[in-house]
Amino acid sequence: MAEKITPRGVDYSQWYIDIVLNAKLADYSPVKGCMVIRPRGYAIWERIQAEMDRRFKETGHQNAYFPLLIPMSFLKKEAEHVEGFAPELAVVTIGGGEELDEPLVVRPTSETIIWSMYKNWIQSYRDLPLLYNQWANVMRWEKRTRLFLRTAEFLWQEGHTAHETEAEAVEETMKMLEVYRDVVERHLCLPVIAGRKSEAEKFAGAVATYSIEAMMQDKKALQAGTSHFLGQNFGKAFDVQFQTRDGKLDYAWATSWGTSTRLIGAVIMTHSDDKGLVLPPSLAPDQAVIVPIYKNDTKAAVLAYGEKILADLKAAGVRAIFDTDDTQSPGWKFAQHEMNGVPLRIEIGPRDLEAGKAMVARRDTGEKAPIEAVALGAAARELLDAIQKNLYDRARAFREANTKVVSDRAELLAFYGADQGEDAGTAGATGGFAEGLWCGGRDCEAALKAEAKVTIRCLPLDRQEGVSGKCCLCGAAARHRAIFARAY
Amino acid sequence: MAEKITPRGVDYSQWYIDIVLNAKLADYSPVKGCMVIRPRGYAIWERIQAEMDRRFKETGHQNAYFPLLIPMSFLKKEAEHVEGFAPELAVVTIGGGEELDEPLVVRPTSETIIWSMYKNWIQSYRDLPLLYNQWANVMRWEKRTRLFLRTAEFLWQEGHTAHETEAEAVEETMKMLEVYRDVVERHLCLPVIAGRKSEAEKFAGAVATYSIEAMMQDKKALQAGTSHFLGQNFGKAFDVQFQTRDGKLDYAWATSWGTSTRLIGAVIMTHSDDKGLVLPPSLAPDQAVIVPIYKNDTKAAVLAYGEKILADLKAAGVRAIFDTDDTQSPGWKFAQHEMNGVPLRIEIGPRDLEAGKAMVARRDTGEKAPIEAVALGAAARELLDAIQKNLYDRARAFREANTKVVSDRAELLAFYGADQGEDAGTAGATGGFAEGLWCGGRDCEAALKAEAKVTIRCLPLDRQEGVSGKCCLCGAAARHRAIFARAY
Repeated sequence: MAEKITPRGVDYSQWYIDIVLNAKLADYSPVKGCMVIRPRGYAIWERIQAEMDRRFKETGHQNAYFPLLIPMSFLKKEAEHVEGFAPELAVVTIGGGEELDEPLVVRPTSETIIWSMYKNWIQSYRDLPLLYNQWANVMRWEKRTRLFLRTAEFLWQEGHTAHETEAEAVEETMKMLEVYRDVVERHLCLPVIAGRKSEAEKFAGAVATYSIEAMMQDKKALQAGTSHFLGQNFGKAFDVQFQTRDGKLDYAWATSWGTSTRLIGAVIMTHSDDKGLVLPPSLAPDQAVIVPIYKNDTKAAVLAYGEKILADLKAAGVRAIFDTDDTQSPGWKFAQHEMNGVPLRIEIGPRDLEAGKAMVARRDTGEKAPIEAVALGAAARELLDAIQKNLYDRARAFREANTKVVSDRAELLAFYGADQGEDAGTAGATGGFAEGLWCGGRDCEAALKAEAKVTIRCLPLDRQEGVSGKCCLCGAAARHRAIFARAY
Repeated sequence: MAEKITPRGVDYSQWYIDIVLNAKLADYSPVKGCMVIRPRGYAIWERIQAEMDRRFKETGHQNAYFPLLIPMSFLKKEAEHVEGFAPELAVVTIGGGEELDEPLVVRPTSETIIWSMYKNWIQSYRDLPLLYNQWANVMRWEKRTRLFLRTAEFLWQEGHTAHETEAEAVEETMKMLEVYRDVVERHLCLPVIAGRKSEAEKFAGAVATYSIEAMMQDKKALQAGTSHFLGQNFGKAFDVQFQTRDGKLDYAWATSWGTSTRLIGAVIMTHSDDKGLVLPPSLAPDQAVIVPIYKNDTKAAVLAYGEKILADLKAAGVRAIFDTDDTQSPGWKFAQHEMNGVPLRIEIGPRDLEAGKAMVARRDTGEKAPIEAVALGAAARELLDAIQKNLYDRARAFREANTKVVSDRAELLAFYGADQGEDAGTAGATGGFAEGLWCGGRDCEAALKAEAKVTIRCLPLDRQEGVSGKCCLCGAAARHRAIFARAY
C-alpha cells in the first residue's frame, strides 16, 4: 500500500520528510547526519548534473578531480576560511594503521587544495584563465541535519577559476551566477532572486558572494546556488604569482561557485503537494505512466492497446512506462505514481480502446481529459511543456503573493509575527520575503536575526538603482535594497 | 617546448610517468599517495564513465549513492572482509571538533554500508533483485603508489546487487564481467582474458572473484575489472533475510563488481609510444587537430581554408580542433599534439590549399597521406575507425607474441628469468603470460610468488574444458588451466 503522507497544513517539516521517504528519494543512514540517495532521488540528480555540466562546458569550463583529503595546515592559510569551516570538519588522524603526522580534513570545500596545485600550474598570464570544475562529495559536520537540505555529506559541483585580472574574475562570478539562475529557473522550475550577500552572510574567504534565493511553500527562503568573487585572497595565501603581460608579477584572481544535492530538496519543497512528489517533467525519470484497467475478458486487448501507446509515446520522445503489474489495483497504482511524481498518468480501459482514446491526467493540476490515441504522442509532449511552465508560473505567483515591501521595523516584525516577541510564533502573520531598504550596517542585521530569526537573503541585483530613503531597521540613510526572510 | 620523455626501452616506469605528467593527465598532490586528475585525464574518465554507465543502465541497473564514511564495526561483521581491508584504512576520529564515539573509516569499498541499508529495503522476494551501482571515490592507504595505477584515493564505480537465488547472483556476476570485457575491448581497445581468480587472489569476502586481465607493453599483467559472487556472506553478516516464494526465510544472495580510474593507466601503458600518449579515438577528447602552415602572405587564405575543414570535420561527427596559436611553430605543435595523443593530425599549407588537399597523419602508425579536402570528413571517420581497430589488434598481437604455454616449473621460471635465482633479474628472459596447468594448491601458488614474483592472474573461462595432465608447478594432477604473470 502507498503510505499516507502528513498534510502540509498539519506539519510542513513532516510532510517534506514523508515525501522524501515514501517516494524513495533518500533514506537515513546508520552514519549520523549522512544520507543515502536512493535510485529515484539519484536519477533526479543525474538530470540536474547533465544540464549543469552541459552549460559549464558551453561556457568553456573543464572538469578535473582533486583529493578528498586536505592537510589541516592548508585551511589555516586563509584566516577567514579556516574560521568559517573549522567547527564543521571531519578529520582523518589514522592512515594505514598509523597515526598521521598531520591530520587531514575531509574537504568541506576545495579552494585550499586546488590553489595549492594552481601554484604549480600558473607561471605566466599565458597559463590563464584556468576554468575548472569538480563533481565531488564534501563533508560538513552539521549538528542538525535534514535529508537533502542539510546533511553531513553531500554531493555537489564546485567551480574554481583563476584569472589574470580582477575584471575577468568578477565577470566570471556573474556569468556563473547567471548560468545557475537560468538552469534552476528553466530546468528545475524554481523562480529565484539573484543578488549579493551581505558581509555577514558571505562565504568564508570571499570578497563578495552572490546567490540565487528561492521561496519554499512554507514561505522560507532557500539558497539554491552561490558564486563567489575571491579576489586575490587564495592567490596570496598559496603564493600563486604570475608574470603579467607587462612583465610584472601579480597574484592570480579567483572565483568559486557551487550547487549541490540540496537543489533536490528545493524542487521537492517547491512543487509537491499532499499527494506526494511533484516533479518538473525535465527532471522526472518517468514522464508518463500508462495504467491499464481491465477484467479477465478484456485483459489481452487492453494490454496490446497499452503496448501500442507506449511505443507511440517513446517515439515522440516521452520517457514513458507501462505499469502492467497485476498484483495491484488501478487505484493503488494511481496513488503510487502520484506519490512518485510522474507528471502524466494515462488510463486505458476497454471503453477507451473502443473509442480509440485514453484518459490523461496531469499530476500538477489533477485535470483529466480524454485524448485521441493517434494524437497522444504530440499531446503528451505539449502537456509536459505546459506542466513545466505551470510549475514555474505557480511558484512565481506564490512568491509574489508572499512578498511584501516594508518601510520600517514594526512592519517587518509584524510580517513575521515577531512583533509580539520571539515566542509569539507566527500565528496570524504570513511571513515570506520582505523587501526593504537597508543601511548596510552589520549590527542592524545581527539584531534582526537575534530577535526574529530573519536574515538578509540578498541584495537583489536588479533592484539597486535609485536607492534612497531610510533603513527599514534603524532609520539611518539606506544604501541598499534588501530581501529579508527566514531561511533554510 | 614540449618536454622530452624517457624512452620505453630505457626505463619503462619513468616513460609512463613522463607521459602522465607531460600530457597533463594527472599530477602529484601534496597529500601523500593522492593524485590530482587534470582536465585532459578527467575527460578520458568521463568517456569511460559514459560508456560504462550506458551499459549498466541497458542491463537494468540504477545508480544510487551511499555514505563515504562507514562505522568501523560494520567492516568487522564479515571476518575475511575486515582482514583484507584493515591494513589500508583511513580513519576519521574527530567530527565537528569532538572525538567520535566510534571511529568511521573512509570507504575502501561499500559492501558493508550498502548491505546495512539493504536490510531495511528487502523483506520479500518481491523486493528483489536490487540492481544498484554507485560512482564514487574510495580510499585505500597504499604504501607504494603510482599515478592512476595505484593511488590512496581513486574514482570508481561499484555495483552491488541482491538476488533471490544463487543461480541469479551467479548469472549477474558473469553478466557484468562480460559487460566489462566488452567495453574494455571495444572502447578502450584493451584485449583481455576473462577468468576466475584463485583462492589466494580473490576479493576479501567473496565466494568467487572473476577478473579481466590485460597485458601492458612491459609484458606485465594489469587487472582491469573484477566481478565478485559474494554468496550469502554479506546477507548473513547484515541479517538480510527475506520471505521466499514458498513462504520460507532465506538470506539474500549478493554480487559486487568494480572498475576504476586505473583503467586510464592501462590505456596509457598499452597504446602509447616514445613520442607520448596514444589514445583510442573513442576516448580521445580531441580526435583530430588541424595545424596550419603559412607565411605572412598566405596566412589569411590558409586560416580560412582551415576553418572550412574544421566545419566539415565537425559536421562529419569528428571531435576536431584548429590550432591557430601563432606563438608556436608547426613543428612544436606536431610534437605537442603527439604528446597529447590526438589520433589524427591534419596539416594544411598554401600548396595543400592550391591542390584542394590536406596532409593527414595517423598518431598510431605515423603514416601520412594527402587527402582531398572534399572527402576529408568521411576519410577522417574511416581513419578513426581504422585506428580504433589497429590499437586493439596490435595489443592483441603483442599479447599473443608474449604468451607461452609452459609444461613444467623449469620452463616457467626460465620464461621469467627467475631460473637463475630471484636476483638474476629478467636479462635474456622475455616474460609475459605463461599458460600452464595447475593443481589448484594454495602452497604451490604461494611458493611461486615468493620465488619469482609471478602470480596466477586467472583461470581463463574459455580454456577449462578437458584439463588433464600435471601441474606445471608441482607435478600433481592438474585441475585448472591458469594464466601466470608478473602483475601491477
